[in-house]
Amino acid sequence: MPLHGKLRMCCQLVDKSLGARWIARIAGRNFSTGNAANMRFVQFVNKNGGPQHLGVQLKQGGDIIAISVLNSRIPNTLKKFLEGGEEFLKKAKRIVAEGRSVIPEKDVTFLPPITQMDKLACVGLNYSGHCKEQNLEPPSTPVIFSKFPSNIIGPHDDIHLPTISDKVDWEAELAIVIGKKCKGLNNDEAEDCIFGYTVAQDLSARDWQKGKRNGGQFLLGKAMDNFCPLGPAVVTKESIADVKNLAVKTWVNGQLKQDGNTSELIFKTNDIVAYLSQFFTLLPGDVILTGTPAGVGFARNPPEFLKKGDVLETEIESLGRLKNNVL
Amino acid sequence: MPLHGKLRMCCQLVDKSLGARWIARIAGRNFSTGNAANMRFVQFVNKNGGPQHLGVQLKQGGDIIAISVLNSRIPNTLKKFLEGGEEFLKKAKRIVAEGRSVIPEKDVTFLPPITQMDKLACVGLNYSGHCKEQNLEPPSTPVIFSKFPSNIIGPHDDIHLPTISDKVDWEAELAIVIGKKCKGLNNDEAEDCIFGYTVAQDLSARDWQKGKRNGGQFLLGKAMDNFCPLGPAVVTKESIADVKNLAVKTWVNGQLKQDGNTSELIFKTNDIVAYLSQFFTLLPGDVILTGTPAGVGFARNPPEFLKKGDVLETEIESLGRLKNNVL
Repeated sequence: MPLHGKLRMCCQLVDKSLGARWIARIAGRNFSTGNAANMRFVQFVNKNGGPQHLGVQLKQGGDIIAISVLNSRIPNTLKKFLEGGEEFLKKAKRIVAEGRSVIPEKDVTFLPPITQMDKLACVGLNYSGHCKEQNLEPPSTPVIFSKFPSNIIGPHDDIHLPTISDKVDWEAELAIVIGKKCKGLNNDEAEDCIFGYTVAQDLSARDWQKGKRNGGQFLLGKAMDNFCPLGPAVVTKESIADVKNLAVKTWVNGQLKQDGNTSELIFKTNDIVAYLSQFFTLLPGDVILTGTPAGVGFARNPPEFLKKGDVLETEIESLGRLKNNVL
Repeated sequence: MPLHGKLRMCCQLVDKSLGARWIARIAGRNFSTGNAANMRFVQFVNKNGGPQHLGVQLKQGGDIIAISVLNSRIPNTLKKFLEGGEEFLKKAKRIVAEGRSVIPEKDVTFLPPITQMDKLACVGLNYSGHCKEQNLEPPSTPVIFSKFPSNIIGPHDDIHLPTISDKVDWEAELAIVIGKKCKGLNNDEAEDCIFGYTVAQDLSARDWQKGKRNGGQFLLGKAMDNFCPLGPAVVTKESIADVKNLAVKTWVNGQLKQDGNTSELIFKTNDIVAYLSQFFTLLPGDVILTGTPAGVGFARNPPEFLKKGDVLETEIESLGRLKNNVL
C-alpha cells in the first residue's frame, strides 16, 4: 500500500475511534521520537469518554502513543495484547521507535492497565518488617491467597468503602504481570515468564480477614468491590533498572504511612513466579501482588483505618503513583 | 427477509462453522419439537474437532440444538450469552420452541459448560455430614474460598494428578451459575440472580489445603490445574423441580463414595448468593460451588486418595454426570 493510502486508513481509524475534536488536537502536535527502552503500557479513554485504547507512555507523566489506534491489528486490551505473544510486542516497539502522533496525558483518563485476568494472586507476609509489626515469624514458603479480577479499579478511581466493614486498611504492593503461559518453572526460567510490573493497593477489611471469621480464610476480607486499585501503567521489565531496589510508599492525606523497598522482599519476584508455577499454569495477563512492607493501619498504635474523605496515595519508584479518593 | 433467504443464510453459517460432512448428517435427521421447559446449556465441539459452539440439550443424553450456529447473533460461549441478558435467552427459547435441526450427543465432545468467569467461589463445610466426618462444628456463616477459572476441565476430560501432591481427594458439589450482575441482595432477591446449576468436582490436595501449609489458606490446595471438572450442562433453574432435593454422588472405580442430597445443605443456594453479594458484585457467568456431602477420601479409615488409573464419576440428580479418568 502506498504511504498516502496507509495514512488515510490510519486517519479513518483514528477518526472513528477517538472522535474528530480530539484528533484535531493530536494532529496539531509534533511527532515525538519514541524510546523503545521505556515501555509503559496503559489502558485509557479520551477524557470525554469513548472507547478504550491501549497505549504506550514513554515516561511518567509523558505523552501517550495510542498503539491500538495506530495499528488496528493491535487489540485494545493489554490482556489480549499479551495473549497475542511476541508479534504484537514487535509491532508496538516498531510504532514507538518510529515516532508517531502522541496524546498528552492531561487529555486521557487512565483505566486499570490490565483487567479480566484468570488469576489475581497475592503473597502474604513477604516483608520482614510487616511480619514483625504483627509479631509473626517470616514464613518459610510464600503464603498465597487471592482476590477477584473484578475487584480492580483504576489508578485514580474512587474507593467506595464497603458497608460491612469499618476496618479497611492499606497495603502498597509491587505487582508482577505475567507475559506468557508457563508451568513448572525453576527460578532462572521464571524471569522469562514476567512481562512487567505495576503498582497495586491490596486493600484489606481486617474485620473479615483476621481472626476466626470466614474460617480463617482471607478471601472475603481481601476480595471486596474496588479493593484493588491498580496502575497507572504496566512497565516492561526491560524498562526497570533493578526491580529488587524500588521504594514502595503509601500516604494517607499526605502523611507517609508505608516507606519500604522491594530490596526487603523475602521471596523475590522470580521465586514467587517459579513457586506458583508448580501449582498451576500461569497465563498471559495474570497478576501477582508480592506483599506489603511495614506501616499498615491495623498494626499501628492506635490502629488506623481508611474513612470517607481520605486521600490514599501509593507509589513505587519508577513505576508510578495511584491516587484514590475514599468515599 | 423471505424464508428461503433466511434458510440459505442459516445453511451458509452452519456449513462454515461445522463442516460439510457433519451437516450432511444433521440434514438427514428429522426436526424435533423443543421443550422450552428443559434447557440444558452445553458448550461443545464436533467429535472430530473444529470451533466451539453453544447448544441446548433437551434432556440428559438427548439431542443438541446448536443455538450459536442456528442464530449467528448468539455467542458461542455461555458467559457471553449470559452477559447479553434476556435478549439472547429469548432467542434461544424461540429456537428451541420452534424445533430446529439437532445433533445427536454421540457426535459431539462436551467442553466445560462455562469458562473464564470472574469468580469461581466455593463454600466449605456446608453439609453437616462433612463437618461431622472431620469432627468440626457446622459454621454459623458460610466459609468462602476460591479456585481459579483455568482449573476447570470438561465433564469427560482426564485429570492429570499434580506432581506436588499425593493426597488428591474428591468433593462432589452442586454449582450455582450466576445469570446477572447483582450486589447487596436479600435472600428473596437472590433467586432472581441465579441462572442455573451444574455439577462440579472440587478436587482438593489435602497435603496443601490442610494443616499449617500455606499459612492455613486453602487456595494452593484447591486451585491446582484441572482441579475443577465441570458440567456436562448448565441446567436452567426453571428446568429443575426442586434444587433443595437432589441426590449428590461420587463413585471411584464404580464404588459409591459419596451419597448425599442437597436437602442437607446448611446454607441453601439463595442464602449463599445473598451472602456473597454483600461482599462483592456478582457477575454473569460467576460459578459458586456449594460444598460437599460426607464421604470424602481423607476422612475415611484408612484415608483414600485418587491414584493413576482411577475412574472418578460425579452425579447430581437431574443435572448430569461427570466421568473423568485419573492420569
